[in-house]
Amino acid sequence: MNWFYSNMTEDSIDIARDMSAIGVAARAASASLSMSTTQQRNLALREAANSLRSNIGKILAANNKDMSGAGDRGLSAAMLDRLKLDAERIDAMAAGLESIAELPDPVGRILAVWERPNGLRIQRVAVPLGVIGIIYESRPNVTADAAALCLKAGNAVILRGGSESFHSNHAIYQCLREALTKAGISVDSIQMVPTSDRAAVGFLLSSMAEWVDVVVPRGGKSLIKRVQDEARVPVIGHLEGICHVYLHSSADPFIARDVVLNAKMRRTGVCGAAETILVDASVADSVLPGVCGALLDAGCEIRGDDEVIAIVAAATRATEEDWATEYLDAIVSIRVVENIDAAIRHIATYGSGHTESIIADDSVAAEKFLLSVDSAIVLHNASTQFADGGEFGMGAEIGIATGRVHARGPVGAEQLTSYKYVVRGNGQVRP
Amino acid sequence: MNWFYSNMTEDSIDIARDMSAIGVAARAASASLSMSTTQQRNLALREAANSLRSNIGKILAANNKDMSGAGDRGLSAAMLDRLKLDAERIDAMAAGLESIAELPDPVGRILAVWERPNGLRIQRVAVPLGVIGIIYESRPNVTADAAALCLKAGNAVILRGGSESFHSNHAIYQCLREALTKAGISVDSIQMVPTSDRAAVGFLLSSMAEWVDVVVPRGGKSLIKRVQDEARVPVIGHLEGICHVYLHSSADPFIARDVVLNAKMRRTGVCGAAETILVDASVADSVLPGVCGALLDAGCEIRGDDEVIAIVAAATRATEEDWATEYLDAIVSIRVVENIDAAIRHIATYGSGHTESIIADDSVAAEKFLLSVDSAIVLHNASTQFADGGEFGMGAEIGIATGRVHARGPVGAEQLTSYKYVVRGNGQVRP
Repeated sequence: MNWFYSNMTEDSIDIARDMSAIGVAARAASASLSMSTTQQRNLALREAANSLRSNIGKILAANNKDMSGAGDRGLSAAMLDRLKLDAERIDAMAAGLESIAELPDPVGRILAVWERPNGLRIQRVAVPLGVIGIIYESRPNVTADAAALCLKAGNAVILRGGSESFHSNHAIYQCLREALTKAGISVDSIQMVPTSDRAAVGFLLSSMAEWVDVVVPRGGKSLIKRVQDEARVPVIGHLEGICHVYLHSSADPFIARDVVLNAKMRRTGVCGAAETILVDASVADSVLPGVCGALLDAGCEIRGDDEVIAIVAAATRATEEDWATEYLDAIVSIRVVENIDAAIRHIATYGSGHTESIIADDSVAAEKFLLSVDSAIVLHNASTQFADGGEFGMGAEIGIATGRVHARGPVGAEQLTSYKYVVRGNGQVRP
Repeated sequence: MNWFYSNMTEDSIDIARDMSAIGVAARAASASLSMSTTQQRNLALREAANSLRSNIGKILAANNKDMSGAGDRGLSAAMLDRLKLDAERIDAMAAGLESIAELPDPVGRILAVWERPNGLRIQRVAVPLGVIGIIYESRPNVTADAAALCLKAGNAVILRGGSESFHSNHAIYQCLREALTKAGISVDSIQMVPTSDRAAVGFLLSSMAEWVDVVVPRGGKSLIKRVQDEARVPVIGHLEGICHVYLHSSADPFIARDVVLNAKMRRTGVCGAAETILVDASVADSVLPGVCGALLDAGCEIRGDDEVIAIVAAATRATEEDWATEYLDAIVSIRVVENIDAAIRHIATYGSGHTESIIADDSVAAEKFLLSVDSAIVLHNASTQFADGGEFGMGAEIGIATGRVHARGPVGAEQLTSYKYVVRGNGQVRP
């Protein structure tokens, strides 16, 4: 058991001293992890799954503690649902770890190889990123998912979950540490910040650049904003997903209807959910009734511009603010645009660079959209809700990055690696 | 001509207003650049080369202004040499632009392609990073080199050179802008901060995240440190190059001598120059005399531990500080180590993660070193001075990155790109 957690009460820790100790231990673990084998890392993941399953009782007891504290915090029903664990969710968490164990090892891949005229043989080889800090909110399963992806890619990880899930996170964390020991991997490969004091996050972001290579925030807009503002270490994350579906004049109306309905309503709380629908003026009359009928039947509120209101009686007036809003709810904004150029401009102005889809039979228009729209993911004739590492076949993801540096789009185990150059010669010197 | 530069004196600018205007213009230029063709970008590079050659007189006059101001600033002889331009150096700058024009286009490369069971076809496609800020010191050729690499990869760039080379940089900059116009590319694709006020750098680092995707510092340790401390945008750079050559017990003594001499003395002021030599105790007696004789003949000062001093009479005592020092000068520290593990530990403790080389005939030892040493570049039987994008066959580089995020090692045009996912379907919705 982590000595921090076992020997201290939450309030007794000295942030600078104890966070520095975590950093030093993480760096050392990272060095020893880089010498661990694929088999060891996968064994740790499978042992962690076993440990979660055999500790269901303890985890649920810890979760009950968090749930009873949640009332005092005034959490919304949606947040309570995210926080709540049951046997099924814990089993899904364990299955997630097992599926990460099955993924190919992202470390040691030869990314490129070439030879120079002077005989030097150069390889670009994937190596772990090093030490990753994960700062997250509410859902306790992130503890297992995020730690597992980091471990898969040979990284040491420092976890800092939300205070609302403090006990659940720690119960899961104990299972992970047990598994590390069984696999012969340093337990410091996965560490958890032993306090819910917000100052610990501040210290992690601003004063641990020596030990932390990258920070990944997972949570709401205010968390991500704080991380981006305060971080002195590289950040991989996304601020929000204001995703668009654009219905081109050549759109198949049935594909338009089905894709919009799915993109908006399959799950409204995910970052890949569509928030705004754009439709070409020339087909608004013919396409919108079917699309909006399906949305209204599914319980979606519609906010539109004047042209939309003229076609869809149930729509209310959208304001300028609507175009820039990530609802994460059963609300959609709809705008009629002059043509594809206006649609691309709208997305450039109001989008968040996350995921956008064009519905079109005209392949020239589709290719123009795919080329011109500067988002992490652009789709043709498919739902924005495919914005997900699992759906991309990456097995699992730590989130969708909208930054342009390092990783963009779904961040899976591969994206949690760096590389180094290995150069083999026979005595070459530079002229 | 840039209206900032033409309409204002250096002191009249309002940092926040004018830097923001530069940011807005850069973002717009970046969007239009992403629609420019390979041919246009390469044409701009060749026209820039022409313009440099036909404006040699103007550039030299501007450089004279900087050189006469340099005395007041108390620049060292080495810095004066970096600042000084002549016809030959300007021609080399132009030739550099032409060679960048010849490189393959890094934008639009299909980095990966796969199909999902549901029929979605996914491509990972290279796209420009966006807007890059370059903060650099003394050498005016960086103005041309850095802008050219950014442009090659479809990025808009904001240049901020040192105050000591203010006039030279602006003269070169005017040539670049002329070339953009001739190629039909927005002149705002390359902009230069119109003041040497340090507050402009502060604003660029802290308040322009909306418009600047990444900052690349090029210069001395204090510049890089400042950038890393103040930046609220991602940084690609390296702090220092404390590079090691390790002479394993199986080292060929002639390769050891030639590689050490080259790694240390070919050019002492480059980041890939070796600063510390480690040698196995079992061969120190037999290998060091040859190695140190060559270094001494070349005018290199030797600082060693007790064992080295016992072998090499001319060596002085190295202090703890020596092991952590990037001399960038004709000085080398030499340490005798017990074995390869001690060498790897020394590098992990004192190295900067830049470039290290092992000299060994024993391939098992070599592979252990290449695997275990966690540096951007690790070499076997070759000089650390190969740490260079040109030597790697990348054509040109903007520097060597020692960070682990995004790009590591030489940063060429390819490394100045990001990617996006392009997904083609036929109506798929997510279950």
